[in-house]
Amino acid sequence: MITLADLKALARPAGTKVVLLVMDGVGGLPRADGKTELDAARTPNLDRLAAQGTLGLADPIAPGITPGSGPGHLGLFGYDPLQYRIGRGVLEAVGIDMHMTERDLAARGNFCAVDQAGLITDRRAGRIPTDTCARLCTLLEKIKLPGIELIVRPVREHRFVVLFRGDGLEEGLSETDPQEVGKPPLPVEAEAPHAARAALIANGFVSEARRLLANEHPANMVLLRGFSKYPKIPKLTDIYGVKAGVIAVYPMYRGLARLVGMEALSAGDSVADEFAALETHYRDYDFFFLHIKKTDSYGEDGNFDAKVHVIEEVDHALPRLLGLNPDVLVITSDHSTPAIYKAHSWHPVPVLLSSKWCRPDGAPRFTERECRFGGIGHIRSAELLPVMMGHAERLTKFGA
Amino acid sequence: MITLADLKALARPAGTKVVLLVMDGVGGLPRADGKTELDAARTPNLDRLAAQGTLGLADPIAPGITPGSGPGHLGLFGYDPLQYRIGRGVLEAVGIDMHMTERDLAARGNFCAVDQAGLITDRRAGRIPTDTCARLCTLLEKIKLPGIELIVRPVREHRFVVLFRGDGLEEGLSETDPQEVGKPPLPVEAEAPHAARAALIANGFVSEARRLLANEHPANMVLLRGFSKYPKIPKLTDIYGVKAGVIAVYPMYRGLARLVGMEALSAGDSVADEFAALETHYRDYDFFFLHIKKTDSYGEDGNFDAKVHVIEEVDHALPRLLGLNPDVLVITSDHSTPAIYKAHSWHPVPVLLSSKWCRPDGAPRFTERECRFGGIGHIRSAELLPVMMGHAERLTKFGA
Repeated sequence: MITLADLKALARPAGTKVVLLVMDGVGGLPRADGKTELDAARTPNLDRLAAQGTLGLADPIAPGITPGSGPGHLGLFGYDPLQYRIGRGVLEAVGIDMHMTERDLAARGNFCAVDQAGLITDRRAGRIPTDTCARLCTLLEKIKLPGIELIVRPVREHRFVVLFRGDGLEEGLSETDPQEVGKPPLPVEAEAPHAARAALIANGFVSEARRLLANEHPANMVLLRGFSKYPKIPKLTDIYGVKAGVIAVYPMYRGLARLVGMEALSAGDSVADEFAALETHYRDYDFFFLHIKKTDSYGEDGNFDAKVHVIEEVDHALPRLLGLNPDVLVITSDHSTPAIYKAHSWHPVPVLLSSKWCRPDGAPRFTERECRFGGIGHIRSAELLPVMMGHAERLTKFGA
Repeated sequence: MITLADLKALARPAGTKVVLLVMDGVGGLPRADGKTELDAARTPNLDRLAAQGTLGLADPIAPGITPGSGPGHLGLFGYDPLQYRIGRGVLEAVGIDMHMTERDLAARGNFCAVDQAGLITDRRAGRIPTDTCARLCTLLEKIKLPGIELIVRPVREHRFVVLFRGDGLEEGLSETDPQEVGKPPLPVEAEAPHAARAALIANGFVSEARRLLANEHPANMVLLRGFSKYPKIPKLTDIYGVKAGVIAVYPMYRGLARLVGMEALSAGDSVADEFAALETHYRDYDFFFLHIKKTDSYGEDGNFDAKVHVIEEVDHALPRLLGLNPDVLVITSDHSTPAIYKAHSWHPVPVLLSSKWCRPDGAPRFTERECRFGGIGHIRSAELLPVMMGHAERLTKFGA
């Protein structure tokens, strides 16, 4: 695969606008009548775009591999997810819109319950309410550790994020969750010498947390995992010299986009709000990542009809986007979430590219089946961004 | 991708003949009536070949990347252009049929104009006539540098090539063109210690050139860039054990083919001449690269109809080639040059392979659209040569 350094060397300025519209988990599988969600949806606007555009299929990571949301999106942003990895702690932190610095070490936390002997009785402390979680996070943030600023934030129920901010905190720590009840939380161990200070700090935090939570019930202890630093990723905005904005209702996707240099734009709550936000900010950015969440949510719920409805809602809103006349529009997905499978899956995702410089396939519809015949071919998701930038005339010739 | 070393290990002798017919830039885009150049051309012979052959699409470098002629052809010769790179100086030298040795360091030169303070007033010296350029090159060739033989040749207008022939001349030099007027030419700097001697020699040349050109007008100075050695590429002829010949009207393509071990055969000036040359030399070589330039030239001119006409001219000449009954014939392109885009583009190129051992697609025509469904699939150009050699029974089994 072409390297990001090569792409940066080829990048050239242009006045073109590029829109990446991600319908999360839109790729599907056929239900009993043989139709996938895209087959079943009434999508006159997507159909017209398919006829004028170029289609393809993309494997987000590698054939057969099911992506998480992080790697799924990194691929769409042009990064090989096998090469650029994001730790679980960082993913949780960006997922609740926390701003990380290079001095931070992030960890994903669970409040848990332990008995008087210190053995775990419930790894999730009965899934305490989120507001209890928030109160306990405020308590934990009071912990004093030498040279460290602590930021502790609730996620949902028993889940929280802790950022250890300070010098010399390196990755390479073992997790404290023994993954079963009846055992004590494990000490944090440094898996490499350079992580020794971080291990000391993390163990200090756990020890103080045990003391502070002693009289709480049921959440009287913490488990930490996914210790990770903010990844050193060349920014998409630097590679291509674009100003990029993300429009996403869920913080996780804004956080992922910020990782690669995009600015979070106000999005509202509905598909219509998101398309309105695109209009509002259209003049001010070169590249837009617009994220539609509910195709995935309904896919995970196994709600085929509701997923179809969201696809139709996006189709209905499309003329607003098309009215802006972007130079390049790609509609695709970070992974498949077939409603009959009720989970992320490994199936390749459908891709539709529309541009005045695309070579039209003349396909009747935007479906997984039609995408098999597309001129983009069957690629990796990470190869798609250069294709977008090529059509946007933002890449100069390779060699003479 | 399979390595050249692996391919060399698999290569075996055979009495088969292979013809690679490159219609430069033949891949296109549809004009208003929805037809690409290949769609619009009347091509009864190509149509018949398409029905009996196997089709495919190929990305010359990577999806979305527009190739220059050098990398585009290296791909077709079986080299990953991202791995095997050719410097600008070398490309210019082979482009005017200069023969380079391993002791040569090539640079692309521009005659420019400087004022009395030595500041550049015109980076192209008013695009002096080519015969003036030739006279000045003869002048520069008289420069004496210790241990160095100088070869200086005009290209066109203000452009020339200089070969520094001598020992210890290594790559890694900065260019002297500041890329704007009002500044002085930059000194050549060694970007690595091993290039120190080359920098000394190059600066000596520039200094002497300044002196010799002082009374010329307007071309009274030179700018040098693209310092590069003849690349150490395993020769196609060695890898596969074939005797290979190139038939090309333009010197650039002969030069590129010589880089990989092919011999330049007399070609004449027209498509008919080139096909005649193939007949003449057919007994004496195993592998032929036959290059048709004008599909690209008319593409760059934006002359859709003339490009269509060249395709028809090639189709008309095809029976002559087919009469030789080559064991493998591939017809493809080094890149697309859509007439409506008027430039090289990033779109994948159509591929047609004909052989008694091919698995026929039964396609009605040789067009970009039909090639999407081809049995070759959607590959990288560099993967095509092994496919050709496989069909030519020139590769033995991999493993037992």
